[in-house]
Amino acid sequence: VLKSVMSNTITEDIDVLVFLPKNNSYLFSTARVAPAILYAQQWLKRDGGKYSGFSFNIQFENSDCVSDALFMLADKSCAQKPDLILGPVCEYEAAAVVRLASHWNIPVISAGALAAGFSNKNTEFSHLTRIAPSYVKMAEIFTTMFEHFTWKTALLLYEDDKEERNCYFTLEGVYHLMADYNIKTYAFSQEDRVDTDDIFQNVYDIEVVIMCMGADKIREIMLAAHRRHLTSGNYLFFNVELFNASSYGNGSWKRGDKYDNEARQAYASLNTVTLLRTVKPEFENFSMEMKKSIEKAELHDCKDCESVNMFVEGFHDAILLYAITLHEAMKNGYSKKNGMEITLQMWNRTFEGIAGQVSMDVNGDRNGDFSLMAMTNIEAGTYEVVANYFGVNGTFQLLPAFNSDSFTLRGRHKAHTEMSDK
Amino acid sequence: VLKSVMSNTITEDIDVLVFLPKNNSYLFSTARVAPAILYAQQWLKRDGGKYSGFSFNIQFENSDCVSDALFMLADKSCAQKPDLILGPVCEYEAAAVVRLASHWNIPVISAGALAAGFSNKNTEFSHLTRIAPSYVKMAEIFTTMFEHFTWKTALLLYEDDKEERNCYFTLEGVYHLMADYNIKTYAFSQEDRVDTDDIFQNVYDIEVVIMCMGADKIREIMLAAHRRHLTSGNYLFFNVELFNASSYGNGSWKRGDKYDNEARQAYASLNTVTLLRTVKPEFENFSMEMKKSIEKAELHDCKDCESVNMFVEGFHDAILLYAITLHEAMKNGYSKKNGMEITLQMWNRTFEGIAGQVSMDVNGDRNGDFSLMAMTNIEAGTYEVVANYFGVNGTFQLLPAFNSDSFTLRGRHKAHTEMSDK
Repeated sequence: VLKSVMSNTITEDIDVLVFLPKNNSYLFSTARVAPAILYAQQWLKRDGGKYSGFSFNIQFENSDCVSDALFMLADKSCAQKPDLILGPVCEYEAAAVVRLASHWNIPVISAGALAAGFSNKNTEFSHLTRIAPSYVKMAEIFTTMFEHFTWKTALLLYEDDKEERNCYFTLEGVYHLMADYNIKTYAFSQEDRVDTDDIFQNVYDIEVVIMCMGADKIREIMLAAHRRHLTSGNYLFFNVELFNASSYGNGSWKRGDKYDNEARQAYASLNTVTLLRTVKPEFENFSMEMKKSIEKAELHDCKDCESVNMFVEGFHDAILLYAITLHEAMKNGYSKKNGMEITLQMWNRTFEGIAGQVSMDVNGDRNGDFSLMAMTNIEAGTYEVVANYFGVNGTFQLLPAFNSDSFTLRGRHKAHTEMSDK
Repeated sequence: VLKSVMSNTITEDIDVLVFLPKNNSYLFSTARVAPAILYAQQWLKRDGGKYSGFSFNIQFENSDCVSDALFMLADKSCAQKPDLILGPVCEYEAAAVVRLASHWNIPVISAGALAAGFSNKNTEFSHLTRIAPSYVKMAEIFTTMFEHFTWKTALLLYEDDKEERNCYFTLEGVYHLMADYNIKTYAFSQEDRVDTDDIFQNVYDIEVVIMCMGADKIREIMLAAHRRHLTSGNYLFFNVELFNASSYGNGSWKRGDKYDNEARQAYASLNTVTLLRTVKPEFENFSMEMKKSIEKAELHDCKDCESVNMFVEGFHDAILLYAITLHEAMKNGYSKKNGMEITLQMWNRTFEGIAGQVSMDVNGDRNGDFSLMAMTNIEAGTYEVVANYFGVNGTFQLLPAFNSDSFTLRGRHKAHTEMSDK
């Protein structure tokens, strides 16, 4: 028995360069994500494990969504090129790094680089594997619902920060996938006051409003919609809670101000798309360990830090995916330096991640599972998951809590008349 | 005397990496521009010359407006970083190279990178010197004319190829500089049929139409305008002949088809902005030598190859500017490896280029001199320069051929009525 364990253990030193920001205002700052990467490293190293012969030399470099990561990569690589790159997350920075890494035959795994443009792996992004569901994957739940409920028109309403541009790229993914529908877009910049008059001038011929913005702006818009009688079933409102991070709005209407009651009623028309959350015992332990690490680090400039967001989970699983694949590839005689081969072998594969099964599509992008949350008790203002979408086979599953009334458009014509009387 | 010449001669080896495309469909292909760079190199080397101690090791690398140049720079620089980079010309590729070069303290001189975004030299483009007038510089002749003739409104009409995007970036420069005017834009893509109906629906409240596109499309639009009676002084039309390259339209209406007569009449309302052309004996010789080199190279896939366009002239002068500056800097004790200092010393300086005086502004961008050409003999359909604009001091000089009638808007109201009757 000992012998077979031994022969199964492949030893290799692996240089990993991780590009994450030091600045803790990012959901994917080094302080938040590093513990997850180290957790995965420890797990792989455990005695007698199949991957215990891998020795990861992990180097964290600052990448603040500008050009730092590219420079660092170019500088470092003169001495010796890394075997694996994790990150960057930010789109513009990732684009530069992935281009150069692909040119140098280095695999890149990121829980970011979620924009539609990265889907094209034929040329400059050939070595990119996306371990978190891209924005286009998230858009699938919308196309599935539009088909299921026979909706035809949508307004994509978002806040554009002109820097990271997460909401811009998110709804770009929706726009990209919904080419066959009648789609309008409305953007406002982060500094601007939200001009709800102007926004609602754009909804008259629209059925569905899909929003991506900060949680407080969502509340502001829902309150305005409620006051205009747009929340009585004549419109459907959705928001996207990005990255499992509540800052983008998770259905919570309560602020302890005088508008809470009104907000609760308004949110009865608001449905939230989130990543599907799975629960398994290992995840509980992981989650606790992450919380401990964050507490130990005593981060003060960090919002919602104790929770495991998509990036924390993703970068953990990135190390697993790489180890599993490299192990297999080396058994088949490939070297870690064959970056293209390692990359391709990471694609079209399913493995057990920290929170559940992770399925990578043939294009090296993770299939996304999403949940739809709706208010199921209007008196209490409580939310439940009412449907799930499974990306791997495109199925849309209605749960017992699902109430079809809440997804049926009503009084369309009446609403229009009321509006034009104003 | 010998001694003073000797002491004035500074010897140094200079590694130059030139990024230009091999593909001759580009106006700035290696085959077209390299002879100019080598001409400058020869001139600097001439016996007893002040710069004869400089030995330029010039390496040409292919850069096809994608990511090649960045990769090449990153690869090469591991062994040894070049002392000077010439090019790239294309905006997107130049952005990547200039960022990395600035990070590595290497001066970059380009006759391209003309877009407005490169004007910000504070951070990522700190080491870029632009030896040809940028699009924003070109826009100055328009703001000057708008002020002089008290025009208020313009339509920016352009063809967007979605690749090099020269016309997009050109009119972006105009848009950028004309923030105080009432500006509309209209773009069509290169593959599309020109929908003149749709275009002219956008001109009713406009005084001036500024166009950037291929010469044949300009003719098509001018013919359509003429047939709609928009060429009788109720509108002013301008086009931009980019890069001293006739492919962007130089006022020539003749095609030898049945529309020539109509086109000649239409072009009476068309004025062309071009780079100011200066003539000096040295330029004649340079021009002849360039022609000979091109003939010798037997290029078959090359349009308008015999002429010296802006890029050919610019990259010639780039070598001169660098040599003059390095010589001065080394006399003052600086090394060629002090890329930031060499760069700064290239700025805010005037020197004698191959076609005339070249004046660099304090921001390292060349001041632009432009000419305005108009048809002065409608019978013959011949064009003349009617005004010049000098960027260094912002003066607008009317020449004897200038006819103020051609720049006075007439029958505005009448035209509007006619239009709305349709």
